[in-house]
Amino acid sequence: MAKWVYSFGAGGAEGRADMRNLLGGKGANLAEMSSLGLPVPPGFTITTELCTHFYDNGKAYPKDLTAEVGTALAQIEERVGAKFGDPVNPLLVSVRSGARASMPGMMDTVLNLGLNDVTVEGLAKKSGDTRFAYDSYRRFIQMYGQVVLGVEHHHFEDVIEAHKTDAGVNLDTELKAEDWQAVIKAYKALVQRELGKPFPQDPQEQLWGATGAVFGSWMNQRAITYRRLHDIPASWGTAVNVQAMVFGNMGDDCATGVAFTRNPSTGVPEFYGEYLVNAQGEDVVAGIRTPQHLTIAGKKAQNSTLPAMEEVMPRVFGELEAVRQKLESHYRDMQDIEFTVQQGKLYMLQTRNGKRTAPAALKIAVDMANDGLITQQEAIQRIEPMSLDQLLHPTLDPKAPKEVLARGLPASPGAASGAVVFSADEAEKRAQKGEGVILVRIETSPEDIHGMHAARGILTTRGGMTSHAAVVARGMGRACVAGAGDLRVDYTTQTISARGKVVKAGDIITINGSTGEVMIGEVPTIQPELSGDFATLMVWADKVRTMGVRANADTPADAKNARRFGAEGIGLCRTEHMFFDGDRIIAVREMIMADDADGRRKALAKLLPMQRGDFEELFRIMAGLPVTIRLLDPPLHEFLPKTEAEMQEVAKATGKDIKLLHHRAAELHESNPMLGHRGCRLAITAPEIYEMQARAIFEAASKVTKETGKGIIPEIMIPLVAMKKELDLLKTMIDKIGAEVAKETGVTVEYLVGTMIELPRAALRAAEIAESAEFFSFGTNDLTQTCFGLSRDDAGAFLDSYLKQGLIEQDPFVSIDRDGVGELMLIAAERGRRTRPKLKLGICGEHGGDPASVRFCQEVGLDYVSCSPYRVPIARLSAAQAALSKEAAPTTA
Amino acid sequence: MAKWVYSFGAGGAEGRADMRNLLGGKGANLAEMSSLGLPVPPGFTITTELCTHFYDNGKAYPKDLTAEVGTALAQIEERVGAKFGDPVNPLLVSVRSGARASMPGMMDTVLNLGLNDVTVEGLAKKSGDTRFAYDSYRRFIQMYGQVVLGVEHHHFEDVIEAHKTDAGVNLDTELKAEDWQAVIKAYKALVQRELGKPFPQDPQEQLWGATGAVFGSWMNQRAITYRRLHDIPASWGTAVNVQAMVFGNMGDDCATGVAFTRNPSTGVPEFYGEYLVNAQGEDVVAGIRTPQHLTIAGKKAQNSTLPAMEEVMPRVFGELEAVRQKLESHYRDMQDIEFTVQQGKLYMLQTRNGKRTAPAALKIAVDMANDGLITQQEAIQRIEPMSLDQLLHPTLDPKAPKEVLARGLPASPGAASGAVVFSADEAEKRAQKGEGVILVRIETSPEDIHGMHAARGILTTRGGMTSHAAVVARGMGRACVAGAGDLRVDYTTQTISARGKVVKAGDIITINGSTGEVMIGEVPTIQPELSGDFATLMVWADKVRTMGVRANADTPADAKNARRFGAEGIGLCRTEHMFFDGDRIIAVREMIMADDADGRRKALAKLLPMQRGDFEELFRIMAGLPVTIRLLDPPLHEFLPKTEAEMQEVAKATGKDIKLLHHRAAELHESNPMLGHRGCRLAITAPEIYEMQARAIFEAASKVTKETGKGIIPEIMIPLVAMKKELDLLKTMIDKIGAEVAKETGVTVEYLVGTMIELPRAALRAAEIAESAEFFSFGTNDLTQTCFGLSRDDAGAFLDSYLKQGLIEQDPFVSIDRDGVGELMLIAAERGRRTRPKLKLGICGEHGGDPASVRFCQEVGLDYVSCSPYRVPIARLSAAQAALSKEAAPTTA
Repeated sequence: MAKWVYSFGAGGAEGRADMRNLLGGKGANLAEMSSLGLPVPPGFTITTELCTHFYDNGKAYPKDLTAEVGTALAQIEERVGAKFGDPVNPLLVSVRSGARASMPGMMDTVLNLGLNDVTVEGLAKKSGDTRFAYDSYRRFIQMYGQVVLGVEHHHFEDVIEAHKTDAGVNLDTELKAEDWQAVIKAYKALVQRELGKPFPQDPQEQLWGATGAVFGSWMNQRAITYRRLHDIPASWGTAVNVQAMVFGNMGDDCATGVAFTRNPSTGVPEFYGEYLVNAQGEDVVAGIRTPQHLTIAGKKAQNSTLPAMEEVMPRVFGELEAVRQKLESHYRDMQDIEFTVQQGKLYMLQTRNGKRTAPAALKIAVDMANDGLITQQEAIQRIEPMSLDQLLHPTLDPKAPKEVLARGLPASPGAASGAVVFSADEAEKRAQKGEGVILVRIETSPEDIHGMHAARGILTTRGGMTSHAAVVARGMGRACVAGAGDLRVDYTTQTISARGKVVKAGDIITINGSTGEVMIGEVPTIQPELSGDFATLMVWADKVRTMGVRANADTPADAKNARRFGAEGIGLCRTEHMFFDGDRIIAVREMIMADDADGRRKALAKLLPMQRGDFEELFRIMAGLPVTIRLLDPPLHEFLPKTEAEMQEVAKATGKDIKLLHHRAAELHESNPMLGHRGCRLAITAPEIYEMQARAIFEAASKVTKETGKGIIPEIMIPLVAMKKELDLLKTMIDKIGAEVAKETGVTVEYLVGTMIELPRAALRAAEIAESAEFFSFGTNDLTQTCFGLSRDDAGAFLDSYLKQGLIEQDPFVSIDRDGVGELMLIAAERGRRTRPKLKLGICGEHGGDPASVRFCQEVGLDYVSCSPYRVPIARLSAAQAALSKEAAPTTA
Repeated sequence: MAKWVYSFGAGGAEGRADMRNLLGGKGANLAEMSSLGLPVPPGFTITTELCTHFYDNGKAYPKDLTAEVGTALAQIEERVGAKFGDPVNPLLVSVRSGARASMPGMMDTVLNLGLNDVTVEGLAKKSGDTRFAYDSYRRFIQMYGQVVLGVEHHHFEDVIEAHKTDAGVNLDTELKAEDWQAVIKAYKALVQRELGKPFPQDPQEQLWGATGAVFGSWMNQRAITYRRLHDIPASWGTAVNVQAMVFGNMGDDCATGVAFTRNPSTGVPEFYGEYLVNAQGEDVVAGIRTPQHLTIAGKKAQNSTLPAMEEVMPRVFGELEAVRQKLESHYRDMQDIEFTVQQGKLYMLQTRNGKRTAPAALKIAVDMANDGLITQQEAIQRIEPMSLDQLLHPTLDPKAPKEVLARGLPASPGAASGAVVFSADEAEKRAQKGEGVILVRIETSPEDIHGMHAARGILTTRGGMTSHAAVVARGMGRACVAGAGDLRVDYTTQTISARGKVVKAGDIITINGSTGEVMIGEVPTIQPELSGDFATLMVWADKVRTMGVRANADTPADAKNARRFGAEGIGLCRTEHMFFDGDRIIAVREMIMADDADGRRKALAKLLPMQRGDFEELFRIMAGLPVTIRLLDPPLHEFLPKTEAEMQEVAKATGKDIKLLHHRAAELHESNPMLGHRGCRLAITAPEIYEMQARAIFEAASKVTKETGKGIIPEIMIPLVAMKKELDLLKTMIDKIGAEVAKETGVTVEYLVGTMIELPRAALRAAEIAESAEFFSFGTNDLTQTCFGLSRDDAGAFLDSYLKQGLIEQDPFVSIDRDGVGELMLIAAERGRRTRPKLKLGICGEHGGDPASVRFCQEVGLDYVSCSPYRVPIARLSAAQAALSKEAAPTTA
């Protein structure tokens, strides 16, 4: 037979902290504190299993529940020395819900339960405070009326407002005992009117009513929606906690407060909290009175003149400080506690792990590990990897005033101020003069790269979290607000406008890429400090992780950043970004406009030395670490100019008739460029491009090998492979050029040739592709696009609807879709390694910097992840956590 | 120990026709004819296993080969009564290759082997014809020199040309015996000069040289390439046939000829062939002399004045006629034969199944089955399904003269003539006046549908075999030439031009959708006759097939056509095609321009009665057969006007500011529409569209059910589903509307709700999708696009290169890619049926009409295929063949 009720309090408890699933979070911690001998007002928890039983049996309670509750209630009565419903010495209780995880939408709390027209008199006498007793009673009627009986809030408010008007007062605190008696009368009439029956006077009826309301709220619409969105099964159920009331508002020897066992903003191990004398918990939160500091140190730090609890109630404070020590050493984590002092006696009402800022989390974890309170591995697991993002970018000074013009998506974290410019060229020009600029575009394209590099931040009015602007900005570590749809960008008048406000080119704006805010004028920012705690934790993380972490880096600046953040190589160097700089784009366009292979070769010959130079620099910076170079990927039309003026320029530069240029542009136009003539398909029809790139790689590797004496081992990556034959053809070509260069330079460069796995077909045919490929790198951006049939650039129009309606929980471009894309990865990894057991596996999609995705990569068995330089620390920590919690690899089907 | 050599000839053989793998096609049939007692010159075959042994052992022959060849050669000598290398009575042989399948690129034939400076004298004496002997010798040197010794062809040509100049003659036939002797001398000098050694005089050396050349040619580059392209394993090897020479050019009692046992053009059972007196095989082919008819009937039919063989050599003709009968009844198929008459004696040199036209194939198969020579099932398997295409469309009169302007892709079969028009509206306008028109566009879009319907044929200058124009044209049965890139279309001047020729709007052109030709002026066409044979074979096919065949049909005209061609239902009704007609497009645009759901509903209310009417008509025509209706699929921007003038019109019609229209168009613009806001995603963000469509379906089904008393069971299909939740949401909505309409009309319509499987993710998640879906229909067009990451509209730019370089064997949009897309189908079928064993599975992509794909569908276990109405007969026959040759289902991984 199940046990439905667990008692706690007065130095002992039937439950424990690890019984969270059965008792809910609140109940489990109350039991634990009781067992620790802390002063917890006695009470009991009705289990979550009862909730499940309730719904499985047509909302009926099991027969034995009444008896169990009766016994537990009698125990409270005995411990408190008061009786439930007793007219002279009434026991009052609180009833609270408590699920495994805190869950908005559910019934929260009913206080002062057990009061009625008779017991209120008992309370008045016992406390010696009539006003307190009637105030407590009216609060109970109001709370119970709302949350249990369903009378709407505003009715109660109306009654009080009317009474205050009649009494000629403004504040509740001015109302006296008789005023509250009149309000109580009106409340009872209100309940009678609204429900057609009187407010329940029987404390037992009150108790079961409140209990039923908690269980009932488990299935209300808000709770159901919340569970659906957060994947919480309905079968978990909620617990109900019934606990003896204690009062912090019975006089000046009473108080109530909340505290953190360490400073939640900085992590410094100091007792940090507030209290109010003669007050209830809600008063601390409500902000009517100014809360006071717990400690003298806290008071001084904030220049407060109000006395600290340490001064006012030194004995009780001493008890509380002891509780603080006990809880921290017991829970081995910073706690968030609630307490009440009733007539000089301390009561603990709640403890839980406290929320904290990212720097605080770091400091607390490192401090605790250094103090031996937790292990280094636990410290690693305590840090939410994404929170590191806050530490790596400048942030807005939270104290500075700001005028928000519009809001977009927080696409790349960090804050930046600068003059508005509308073109990449302008951005570059002004930046070269030392001016800080914000590049504002409707959307960005690969042609804007140099401008994005030059700008401090990027603002677009179209595109999502994974639009071109967002992805590139994150890669460069530039702040970016994307898809700020309320803004109108007008290139002609060189203005942006929103809600009647107009910002002109050259005006200063500030963007906050961590929140999506766009602000007029300059808002001061704070530079990040990579504190010692950060470095310490990273060292610990690196010790435990088993996957490598590389960075996606296209430029020397990226590569330097990558190393600074601890990348162990480059997992993706996108060579196309090198094609846009100054003279290069002219040669690229000449190549595109060429009539035949010879013409293309002539144009490519101009690019060769520049491309070789790029690779030399990368190899030097990476100093022997692996560098994965992806050969040209985007369709050629991305390199053609868009405007007529630019067309004219190109016509001049290439000496071609503008008509031919238009014709070529029309020829190259594609309906779905993402699925078009790109990646290795370019090299199948025009092998010259890859020939030049392969030569540049081999020549650069030879030169740097000679220079440094260290072997440079480039990993040459072929994009968009759908079948083995494509790879074979191109590998043969690369091998041939490798041999040629070896002969010319006298240096034999070791290298790998591998492929992106970014098409479903490649994943399915991995067994045979692995016969030729020496490594796979999962291009999960494109794999997500093709697996879902979902264009990253166009998904903004409906993904929001999908998220809101609960069809998806996460944008699949942000966190890997384990069920679909993930299965393709599993298939590819398994089949690839069946052919080639030592096949090197990596990921270079945006997902490489997403903690949940990194964890999946560990499960799949990847050798490394690669992500934007600024995400490298996040990936390092995520990989460490994944290694620590490594589970059995998932299987297909 | 292996047997390397198989003898044949003179009434017996060691081999048989079914030993094709061992003896090659030619050797097996020579053995079979010998065993049948037919007069085959004796010879032997060295097996394909010897070829394999040869390559497995460093190009060395097994030791016992020499002895076996010696024995077999001695047997020929005995049978012929001549000796190899004998100066007086020399045996001459031919040496030919013979693989399992005929294979271009390999060494073909060396004739007259055994001749040398001595035996040529013997041949001269024995034949009594010195010129013949020396001509034979010089032919041998030339052939052997080229194919065995590798001396280039032109060297020999130069020698003859020089000699003719010297002799002052023009033709080879004017050269006398002594001329040939001089040529032989020069040939031998040529060989000595080129190779540094003399032409081999030893017949044994000649024989082994030729044998080695055959085996060597198995691994030459052309043969390797051919095998790679046709998936022929190198391990098959080739056989070598050595056979005693017979001569048709030894006098007027000699002849040579080729014949078919039935008329290969019509299939009529008449002896059909040609012969030449005193000639060699090559003379018949070379066309220097006019070949004569075999039969008197043939001679009369062609109004020939040259005597028939039946007249000239009645006895031998009689023997040949007997051979014809014997071969047909033995091989049970029409034979293509070669024969030689040497000095009054008939020799059979070859027999094989003869190539034939589509009507002939049909007639022969049906005749033979009716005569009991083959079974009906064999008749079914004899017909190449795609050949039926020729029978279903008008064809150009082959005798008519034509002026070809340009060539494109044969995108939709049939021929059509008409006036050139450049817009869909113009096409419709002229067609309504009864004029035949050809719609000429750079490319077509869904907005052109009405014009394509109105036109007799469609010509585009861009796009491939599976471009919009091609797909729609095939669906409608309109002739189409697509991607005629040589043509320049100029909409402004209303002209098309190519190679300096200009065609103006209104000028007549003819297009041949079966060949891709575009011709100036009208070329007369012949209307197709669906003859009795066609109907008979279709009945037989329907008896054996196990898969259903449905049609993709959007309009009543399509549906009628579909039934005429034997479709058993509609597998895909694309409702978007219904949105373009006249008033409808206005309402559709109003819907797109609406500000909110209410505005959309108002516009959709106008569409409801029209859409309902469409469905009523379809239901009536299909008379209770299943009708699968796909709810709206394309992105909304496809319905917006493209030109400024049209924009103005829409602004007027909808009463909206043109700026708003531009703004909306810009909003709806997509980078990759194929992967964009379409399919069920439209209904997630704007459910009103599907609500209207569901209502139209239910109301129409109710009405027609009432009218006819027959239950109409619509199958409602949701496109572009990637996850179960999408389907669930929309199924709930459809069920709700179904219940509403049932209540309103009093008729409860049975219906199914299912989904397209056209995204890799849907295939992978089929198990859970099948919990909600009552059927799956494979949308293999989109599944191919997403699996390969390949846009159908853009693939033209490189697929050709892929085909030419042997990277792919087939356009994957034409024939299903079994390895990639096919595995996704298998996964989906298997997982779907694991959840729902009776899950109905079909295919509605273009592949449904491709024989190889239909066969794959049978292997996967689909319940039906659906294709364009004009492809229905092809699908019926393919499905019958697939059922007959059903193999074990392929497996994944």
